[in-house]
Amino acid sequence: MSEIFKKHINKFVEVSDGEFEEIKKFFNVRQASKKENLLEEGQTCRYHYFVLNGLLRKFFVNEKGIEQTTEFAIETWWLTDNFAYENQAHTEFYIQAVEKSTILYITQEKQEQLLEKFPVMERYFRFVYQRAYAAAQKRIKFLFSFSKEEFYFQAVRNHPEFVQRVPQYLIASYLGFTPEYLSEIRKRLLS
Amino acid sequence: MSEIFKKHINKFVEVSDGEFEEIKKFFNVRQASKKENLLEEGQTCRYHYFVLNGLLRKFFVNEKGIEQTTEFAIETWWLTDNFAYENQAHTEFYIQAVEKSTILYITQEKQEQLLEKFPVMERYFRFVYQRAYAAAQKRIKFLFSFSKEEFYFQAVRNHPEFVQRVPQYLIASYLGFTPEYLSEIRKRLLS
Repeated sequence: MSEIFKKHINKFVEVSDGEFEEIKKFFNVRQASKKENLLEEGQTCRYHYFVLNGLLRKFFVNEKGIEQTTEFAIETWWLTDNFAYENQAHTEFYIQAVEKSTILYITQEKQEQLLEKFPVMERYFRFVYQRAYAAAQKRIKFLFSFSKEEFYFQAVRNHPEFVQRVPQYLIASYLGFTPEYLSEIRKRLLS
Repeated sequence: MSEIFKKHINKFVEVSDGEFEEIKKFFNVRQASKKENLLEEGQTCRYHYFVLNGLLRKFFVNEKGIEQTTEFAIETWWLTDNFAYENQAHTEFYIQAVEKSTILYITQEKQEQLLEKFPVMERYFRFVYQRAYAAAQKRIKFLFSFSKEEFYFQAVRNHPEFVQRVPQYLIASYLGFTPEYLSEIRKRLLS
């Protein structure tokens, strides 16, 4: 299972088998069942999650009581509330397993120790954050440039497997509209 | 002038005077006059910018022909179109000096060489990207959770000096409404 993590690290930096055995010790593995919350609003954000398999999402509950999904994480994606994680602060987010998932997780303290002991992991995380930041910049542009319908059509065109895999009500929650409205658009797309 | 950059690096990592003299050589300095474009839509995104003084903004022109500002960068902030920069691709953005500014800039190639020669800079950039990513996540949450008026009130409360410094039509462009509408809200805020 941890082969997935090793492969991901080696996409960016070179780490020997022996080094990886040491690196692994900084992490724990856990299962999460479908709809299980790994993090809830108001809790201290203690962990950085790496998805080995399955699917997580991050959401917050808006002032109307509606769950607004801001991110998904599939295999080899990292996920946390980065601001709260870095500052060991209370979070305004939930992190929930959308499917039964297997996850590596690490605390801030351990991540710091890992980076101290294996400076090569600075390069790995530099890449991880750099790409995540670039993706977030793209998301912000999309949020401004497309109407919600166009945003959905883009998602269907560019990530058809993902749109197929995720329950429709969560796609709606990511796009910021009601499931009823999404089903209306889908009908229009199919007709 | 480069003292600002040295101080910023030393906030995150330790770099000796001698090392900094070497690091500096990977960068160039330039001035930008007010409203000068450093990057334009369609160009290859060659540079990563670090603001020594002044103020930059990043924007794109939406389908209605309106400039939508997605980011500002004041002193000690990095700015580029990260996706296009990493992939040496054409950008959909403009980067423009809002005020007369002094800027350090580096190419992707030189940045890679810098990281190879000074691995300590991996740690520096890991921090830079990590914080920028956390800020982008916050921005995405704001875009969903607040009405535009509330977003403006938040900005006034949390960053009063910034709101004072930036021309109002650019604040409007960042929030996604017309200058006329902003001036209406401001009246409401003052009354």
